[in-house]
Order: sequence, then C-alpha cells, then structure tokens
Amino acid sequence: MAKKLTPRSEDYSKWYNDIVVDADLAQHSDVKGCMVIKPYGYAIWERMKEVLDGMFKETGHSNAYFPLFIPKSYLSKEADHVEGFAKECAVITHYRLKNNPDGDGVVVDPDAKLEEELIVRPTSETIIWNTYRKWIQSYRDLPLLINQWANVVRWEMRTRLFLRTTEFLWQEGHTAHATQAEAEEETRQMLEVYAKFAEEWMAMPVVKGNKTESERFAGALDTLCIEAMMQDGKALQAGTSHFLGQNFARAFDVKFATKDGGQELVWATSWGVSTRLMGALIMTLSDDQGLVLPPKLAPIEAVIVPIYKGQDQMEEIVAKCREIEADLKSAGIRVKLDDDDAKRSGWKFAEYELKGVPLRIAVGPRDLENGTCELARRDTRTKSFEPLEGLATLVRSTLNSIQTDLFSTAKSRLSENTVEVDTWDEFKAAIKDSKFVMAHWDGTAETEDLISQQTKASIRCLTFEGDTTPGTCVKSGNPSPRRVLFAKAY
Amino acid sequence: MAKKLTPRSEDYSKWYNDIVVDADLAQHSDVKGCMVIKPYGYAIWERMKEVLDGMFKETGHSNAYFPLFIPKSYLSKEADHVEGFAKECAVITHYRLKNNPDGDGVVVDPDAKLEEELIVRPTSETIIWNTYRKWIQSYRDLPLLINQWANVVRWEMRTRLFLRTTEFLWQEGHTAHATQAEAEEETRQMLEVYAKFAEEWMAMPVVKGNKTESERFAGALDTLCIEAMMQDGKALQAGTSHFLGQNFARAFDVKFATKDGGQELVWATSWGVSTRLMGALIMTLSDDQGLVLPPKLAPIEAVIVPIYKGQDQMEEIVAKCREIEADLKSAGIRVKLDDDDAKRSGWKFAEYELKGVPLRIAVGPRDLENGTCELARRDTRTKSFEPLEGLATLVRSTLNSIQTDLFSTAKSRLSENTVEVDTWDEFKAAIKDSKFVMAHWDGTAETEDLISQQTKASIRCLTFEGDTTPGTCVKSGNPSPRRVLFAKAY
Repeated sequence: MAKKLTPRSEDYSKWYNDIVVDADLAQHSDVKGCMVIKPYGYAIWERMKEVLDGMFKETGHSNAYFPLFIPKSYLSKEADHVEGFAKECAVITHYRLKNNPDGDGVVVDPDAKLEEELIVRPTSETIIWNTYRKWIQSYRDLPLLINQWANVVRWEMRTRLFLRTTEFLWQEGHTAHATQAEAEEETRQMLEVYAKFAEEWMAMPVVKGNKTESERFAGALDTLCIEAMMQDGKALQAGTSHFLGQNFARAFDVKFATKDGGQELVWATSWGVSTRLMGALIMTLSDDQGLVLPPKLAPIEAVIVPIYKGQDQMEEIVAKCREIEADLKSAGIRVKLDDDDAKRSGWKFAEYELKGVPLRIAVGPRDLENGTCELARRDTRTKSFEPLEGLATLVRSTLNSIQTDLFSTAKSRLSENTVEVDTWDEFKAAIKDSKFVMAHWDGTAETEDLISQQTKASIRCLTFEGDTTPGTCVKSGNPSPRRVLFAKAY
Repeated sequence: MAKKLTPRSEDYSKWYNDIVVDADLAQHSDVKGCMVIKPYGYAIWERMKEVLDGMFKETGHSNAYFPLFIPKSYLSKEADHVEGFAKECAVITHYRLKNNPDGDGVVVDPDAKLEEELIVRPTSETIIWNTYRKWIQSYRDLPLLINQWANVVRWEMRTRLFLRTTEFLWQEGHTAHATQAEAEEETRQMLEVYAKFAEEWMAMPVVKGNKTESERFAGALDTLCIEAMMQDGKALQAGTSHFLGQNFARAFDVKFATKDGGQELVWATSWGVSTRLMGALIMTLSDDQGLVLPPKLAPIEAVIVPIYKGQDQMEEIVAKCREIEADLKSAGIRVKLDDDDAKRSGWKFAEYELKGVPLRIAVGPRDLENGTCELARRDTRTKSFEPLEGLATLVRSTLNSIQTDLFSTAKSRLSENTVEVDTWDEFKAAIKDSKFVMAHWDGTAETEDLISQQTKASIRCLTFEGDTTPGTCVKSGNPSPRRVLFAKAY
C-alpha cells in the first residue's frame, strides 16, 4: 500500500472514499448505485449483525423472512407511505427473457408481462402488515415481535459507498401490539438498543431524540433517532425507531379480539439500521493513516508480525510468534499471525494500520533474546516494549482501554462541538463552523424549511436530554417551546 | 392444534404441505411463488446457516456481498449459462413510479426506463466474475475463496414451499484458483462439506456423485451433487458443487500473472445449498404426527411442560420446572419452559409434537413427590419416568441417541430401498416401486432421455461409491462403462 490516503484536511469526502476502497471494505459495482462489500468490510458488518441480533433476541424478538417483491398496489394502501416510498424504486414488469430474434443476446419477452408490476422492497411495512392480518386474531397473538435481516432497494441518483447506495443491507423490526402505550414503549426500547450498540460497541456517541414532523418516516406518527457527529462536524442519522400508530393496521385491516370481546386495530412499530453504520463507524474513528476500528467490532483485534533476516531467524521467530498466537487465541482474542514471507514487515505495518487493526505485536531477534515484543496501538499510534510473560492479559486490557478511549475522544469532540446560540448571526456562524447547534425554533415547518434553505442545516432531532425551557425562535422571533438540535447532515 | 395432518399414506404431498403450514415453518405470500418463512422455520434455517458458515470458514472461505441486480448483457457472456438462466427471471425495466394521472394509485413512469434492463440474480457467477477481473492480477491473489449468503430469484410456474419457490435463500460459494487440479480439489472438498452437514447435522444420509452432462449446471464442466432419499422413495438433490473450468474467466477476461511471468486464465468453482434443505429435512425425518427435528438443528432441544390442577399445585410445580430449566440451560441444552397457564397441557403436548421438539419433559404432582419426571422422545414416541437427579446428563445423552438413531433409520431405509437391476422389466418395476435403482446405462443423452420419458426416472448421479464394473445398458443393450443411480426426483 504505497498509496497515501488523501488527508482529511484536504478533502474529507475523498479521504472517506479512499479509506473504503484502500482498506478493502467496499467498491462500486458496474450496476449503477450498487456496491460490492468486500470480505474485510463484510467481516465488520457480520460482527455488527451478530451483536445486534443478540440484542434483538435478548429483548424477545425472533427473525423471519418476507418476500423481496411487493405488489405495486400495496404501496398505495397507506397514504403517507406511498408518498415516501413509491417513487424511486426498482420496478419489475416482466418475468422472462428470450433469444433476440434480430441478433445476438437476449431481449425482454413481451409475452411475459406481469399483470401487476412488482416493486423491489424499499422497506417492508406493507408486505409484512398484509401478512400480519393472517397471523393476528386475538390479544393472545400479541405482542408480535419480529425482525428481518434483508437487502432493500431505493433508487438513488447520487450514491456514496455505505452512506447511500441503491441496494443496501439492513435489519427491519416490525412489531404489533395491543395498546398504544406498549407500542410506544417498544419504539423507545429499540432506540435505546441502537444507542447502546452505537456507544458501547461502535465507540460512537449519539444524541437521541424525536424527529420533527417533516422528517418522520412516511407513515409514522413519531420517529425516534440516534444522531452521531462525524469528524467534519456533520450529523449522520445512524438508526431510527418508528411509532406507526394504527396506520398500517388500518391500511391492511389488521384487527384483534380484545380480552373483553371487542375488536380493535393493532398498534405498530418499525425500526432499522443498515450498512450505513459502516460509513458512520469509519467517519467517527478513522484518521489520515486509515481505518481505526473499535476492538469489539474488529475482525482482527491483534496482528502478530515477525521481524527477521534470513531463513534461520525466520524459523525461530515465527515459531515464537505461533506460541504467542496460540496463547492469545486461548484467551479468546481474535488474533492473526501474518508470517507471509513474500511481504516485507514494513508493508505489513502499513497494511494493518490502513485496515485499522487495533493492536500490532512485532517480534524481532532482540525480542527473542529478551523475551519481549513491541506492542503498537493503532488509535494513539504509540509503541512500547512489553514482556511476553503475561502478554494475553495485557493485550486484553489494552484492547479494553482502546475501546474506552475511542469513545471518550469521540464523546469529547461531540461535547466541544455542540453549542447553544440565541441569535440568527450566531446561528449562521456556528453552522458555518460545522457545529451541532442547540437553538430555539418556533415549531413550524415553514421556519424549518427556511433555515434549511438558508444554511443547509436541518433539525436533527428534538433531543431527549438538554435544555427544554421555552424561548424565542432564532429565525422568526416567535415563541419557541424548547431548543432543538440543528446541524448539516449526511 | 385440533387439526390432524393428512397421513403420508393418503397423500404424501399434502402431508408435506400440512407440516410446513401447521408447524409454522412457512406459508405462501400474496406475491406469486414467493414464501414467507415464519419465525420457527427461520430459526431452523438460522441454525443451518450458522453451522454451514462455520464449516466454510474452517475451510478458509470468507463472506462477501455482491449486487442483487445483474445487467442483462452479462448473462449472455457465457454461452451455456445464458441458456440455463436467462429465461425465467425477474426483469427490471423502470426505476420510478408516479401518481396515476388518470385516477388512483401509482403507475410506472414511462420516462424512467432503464437503458439496459436489470435481472434479479438467479445465481451470481456473472456479476462475481466481472468483479474478480479487478481483484485478480497475480498468482499471489489466488486462491480466492469467497462465499455469499443471499436471496435469489428464478421465476417458477409451479411452486412448493421450500422445495421450489420463485425467491429463495441460499449460499453461493465462488472460488478462483491458479490450477485445474486445485479447482477440482475445491469442488470435491465442498461436496464433502455438504455431505458431512447433511449426514452429521441433518441426520440425512446422502449419495455422492457426478451429474451426467445433461444435468450439469449451465456453464460447468462437471457438477458434483449429494442426493437424498425422501420417505416416498423420491430423490432430492440437496447440494451441488461445480467445477467451472475456465469458462467464466474466459467470458469475463480474468487472467493472472503466473510465477514464471506468463498470463493464464483463472480456474473456477461454485457451490450452493438453499432453503430447499428445509424441505429435505422435513421429508426425510418427519411422521404423521408432524415435524421430527434432529437435535443438533432443533431451535428447542427439550421442552418442559408442567402438569397441575389449581393455583397451589401450579406454583410449586412451575418452581420445580424452573429449576430443571436452569439446570439444563447451564448444561448448554436449548430448553424451553412452557408455563403458559392459558393453554392445557394436552394442547402443549400436541403442539410440541407437531413442531418436532426432540424431547419433552413433563412434571406433575406425583413427580414432585417422587423426584421424577416423564421423559418423552419425539422420534420413537416412547416415554419413561426418570429421576430429576442427573437429568441434564440423561437429556444430553438421549439427544445424542436421537441424533444417531434418526440417521441410522434413514440410512437403513436408503440401503433397503436401493436395488441393482439388470433388465428393462426389472428396471420399470423397481422405479414404479419407488426405489433408488443402480443400473447400467450406455452413456448417451438419447438413452437418458428415453428412460426419463418412459419411466419419469432420471439419472441422479454417477455415484462415487458402488459397483463400477462394465456391463450392458438396461435400455439400449449397448455396452455400459458402469452402473449409475436412477430415481424419480423432486
């Protein structure tokens, strides 16, 4: 990897793309807007999936699988939903190709036209609630707590690897409840699950809150979100949890017999995170040398690199490295020994730095004599010589420190770059300065739009925490019930 | 579950469908040919995935993810492949809907027509080999050992839950090698992985062999397969592993620099199993009372059912059941305590029998006095009273016995129903009698077709094991190099 990454200061967006491509995380495919997730990138996503899946199961959810295709008419059944999702999507009109009668290749067979077009799912509320009608008869069938891991497609004109792609991978939870209170509690609970995952696993601090009406999910009565601050000061919506009220139950006629013999519409939630989290992870922690991974999600927590000259040294040192590898493995550490003789150790150092492996353990001839190794932290880029005796314990505690330190650093950055402002001039300056801005807003969509047009900042959320005393709108001067969080966003 | 399953003897195919639906494994969706995999069915598939994924990783493979969509022209690049796959598939022609100008709902926007149509992947060789061209430059980049877990779509006119659906879930391995020998070894290795999984995890004995030329994967030089015998005597192809030669490398121009500085085309394999395995699992082991699951793949290995009358008894007995549950859990057994007071124990017995839970532990008032429980095996439907003392050890060993016994039973059925025949009359009788038939074949596609037309039996494979001495074709009377396996098949 002789190639140097574009520094963040020079071109943040190019830096991001360089990391994704050079660290072998993903690449664009020849299919417009669709990415290929490469093995190393997919291994990180697999770790994320595994952890999240465990958290969903702990909170009582089961996985299931629903069709990829949605009949076009389903999208129209929920009035708001169709506005949000029935526009930019992949439409299947035919089910057969045939040999081209006029030449080479294959052409669409005009005789194989579908009676009703199918849409590749952009999200699955409609197909799932159409199914729930058959699953839910009585209060005994509730709550129904289902999650799906799936691919979805939203036709995007401008795409960026992981952040916005036409096809992406995600999970979508879809739950059904007997009461409004229970559905609202579920909505909140799953947001807390996402926040916990972001902070404790991704080392990415988040702000929790409610979306404004104009930013809600199409068909939701309330959308909760977690927002993270990227290193360029922009916000990234990292997960959402929606309270859907009875909208989808009404649209798909899903009623249940209550305990006292009545019939009521079912209450719904949905919630999701996607491969977009990969983008959030990269932009929160990485640096100009490449990816920085939180140990808890790193496919490789520690890499061992032997340093030697000549065959004799190699054999002796590699043998010692194998011992260390076995030692760390048995301590439950995800370790890799790179003893590929065809690559120089300098190349390996750069490679694992680029790939964000949290710890590097180098063993050279002197180490062999002294019973030591060189331990290098990826996050701080600091090195120290350490005894091989008790190394597994030290490695584990250092990994724990890295995890904690990464979170603390990101948390400090978030705090330091979040400001309260009270005037329009201060507001514009703070947004220009890439801050998270807590400011008063009069609660109207008009003012929200105006601010967005003039500053490119949007209301990220009505934060759960922070100052909620009334004041005066920073833009209109009208009364404001509380401060809300503004920022430019991905 | 008052409803009784259709017995196998009455209507085997209806019996199968009853189990899938009544045991809550899957159901048809409103989208033609697409199924919904319900939580209980998905939990079994998840176990299968987890085990297989571990086996792939142990043999050095990594997961990655490639686009759902394939440009139409890609399918035409490999001449045989297009014949096999470019026919019945979902074709995306447009990327936008718009509000219907003439009325309700949404319609396809004629202005959003794709320049080149996209196909929803029926299999991913083309898109993957188009990507491999960028990944492979030198012999150092080989072997490339990749697997993908994905959904695929093949437009089917006649569908059956799990066995043949328009959309299904699968894994597809796609590997690239420097030499023919290495690719052939990989093809064989992955077939062995599938056979091991089928026999040791699914308790489903399989016959391994090569497909005939007419049954090969479109684009392969050789297709290896595992074939299992269902209880009706029909064969089910449960997994395939293909040696693709240099066909896809040639079609997508994937060359590598050899050690001595030359340029050569890369050698390829691909291999896959799908949710079809769920159908194979059901039809191999289940009975007229419902699903029978091999303990190793059962989401619940043992269910505990308290038997009581009245509140006082309930509390005491449920408390004891909780102790047992904790005990079994800590022994690593996937156990469920069903203490739902709203359902009768008789209902529960029938329910878990239907769902194939391998062991049932019932605890009643007498058991409480005696320190015993009733242990019931799902496979043999035998019951015994057992002491609670040391129960976890007994449960584990009984689960092991069930796993072994299920395999032995299926293995005996396979042996007993596999026959060698030497005359055409014997052949017809044996096929009519739903046997696996080892018979001589002259090696021509004409004879293969003729036999298939007259008896509906196809050549399942040229078995790896068994008699390979030459003889005389059972149909044509021409010389035959060896016996091959014939059967009717799913």
